Amino acid sequence: MPRYALKVEYDGAPFSGWQRQKEHPSVQAAVEAALAKLERDVPSIAAAGRTDAGVHALGQVAHCDLAKDWDPFRLSEALNYHLKPAPVAIVDCAQVDEAFHARFSAVERQYLFRLVSRRAPLVHDRGNAWRVAQELDPDAMQAGADRLIGNHDFTTFRSTMCQADSPVKTLDELRVESLPYPGGTEYRFHVRARSFLHNQVRSFVGTLERVGAGAWTPDDVTAALEARDRAACGPVCPPEGLYLAAVRYPDDPFA
Amino acid sequence: MPRYALKVEYDGAPFSGWQRQKEHPSVQAAVEAALAKLERDVPSIAAAGRTDAGVHALGQVAHCDLAKDWDPFRLSEALNYHLKPAPVAIVDCAQVDEAFHARFSAVERQYLFRLVSRRAPLVHDRGNAWRVAQELDPDAMQAGADRLIGNHDFTTFRSTMCQADSPVKTLDELRVESLPYPGGTEYRFHVRARSFLHNQVRSFVGTLERVGAGAWTPDDVTAALEARDRAACGPVCPPEGLYLAAVRYPDDPFA
Repeated sequence: MPRYALKVEYDGAPFSGWQRQKEHPSVQAAVEAALAKLERDVPSIAAAGRTDAGVHALGQVAHCDLAKDWDPFRLSEALNYHLKPAPVAIVDCAQVDEAFHARFSAVERQYLFRLVSRRAPLVHDRGNAWRVAQELDPDAMQAGADRLIGNHDFTTFRSTMCQADSPVKTLDELRVESLPYPGGTEYRFHVRARSFLHNQVRSFVGTLERVGAGAWTPDDVTAALEARDRAACGPVCPPEGLYLAAVRYPDDPFA
Repeated sequence: MPRYALKVEYDGAPFSGWQRQKEHPSVQAAVEAALAKLERDVPSIAAAGRTDAGVHALGQVAHCDLAKDWDPFRLSEALNYHLKPAPVAIVDCAQVDEAFHARFSAVERQYLFRLVSRRAPLVHDRGNAWRVAQELDPDAMQAGADRLIGNHDFTTFRSTMCQADSPVKTLDELRVESLPYPGGTEYRFHVRARSFLHNQVRSFVGTLERVGAGAWTPDDVTAALEARDRAACGPVCPPEGLYLAAVRYPDDPFA
């Protein structure tokens, strides 16, 4: 069976997350339903990141096995046709070796978090970013973020539901970018690691927002990290600003 | 009565346009309903541009007269509170001289049109941009746009419903910006003039998209302009990519 890698973009709002669940709509089920319009008995698909309810993707990667030899462009067109009107789109597609596995072959996940600070509610980016009313100090947020870079026990920044074997991970990048935004400022958090714990990015951003607001200091971030205690975490921020931005493989399947 | 200028951002999708109409939701009615929560008998408000159904705004400007002396910041906060959950936000507010009129004092309107060329349907920008599947040539679009700059009789690019006294207008800017977009390219049309005819920007963009696709040449744009005939226009594009971006006054009320 030929195997195909799919680059998937989605709006997480209407879904209970990537992973298929009985009784709740999921992105996986939407893509599998589109595949089922093309061939019978398509096996379950696997994805690089099992995003939570409400979390978006710009570049989720999944793979599927099909019976027929499909031209990748025609496959993506057919899937996009059958995915309508769900807010899910196949933005790239490539045939890959059977050794390729969307989850296990991945060597890096990149997340983006969009946080907008302004007094007025969001209009055009409603549901696409987390809006806070207070002003934030980007230098303080970056100073706090720097305390988290590297290899650490991230128990503090891990959901109690997390199923990972170990809380020890290496965080390669946590960079705060400031951009002008009408009536305020947008802060983009660029986060990069081989893999992440459950709720790790939202725990980081929720904590760093407190630093930006002046309620926490960068030293408080270090103390929280060193506590290795979930109760030491700042508030977990809402999912609507979070995007699985990209997944990296030793050989880019879409190159 | 003190007069206030309001900078208004809105998503045009749920509205029949700026202007109040019986039986149909309008942005004007939404703002007036919020004002009515603050004071009794607030007079009708006026705006710089009467945007059509489905057209968005980043920087519409309106003015209102109130009985009470309001702190402008508190006024914008109170209006945003009462506007919820409508996708309308007051992003700036200033007290102005009674000689200020949002429509008649304006010396320039700036529009933005977002056109995305990619095969996959839009996900995060659904409703925020016009998506076309074909590839477009930005140099050809700019060459076509250049034929429209200056003082012309724009009868070709004017809705038959247009109520302006004269079809002669001066177009100061029509610039096509290319930006990377996941899976394609975004083209932003920056359009600037003292005032516009009804459907003028959407007539321009619909025509220039035909040039970008290779169906029209820049010479065809000149011929259409010189025909001074609505039937010579290219297809009018849909409203979801159009934004009233800014309005300029001799003295910026929000400076």
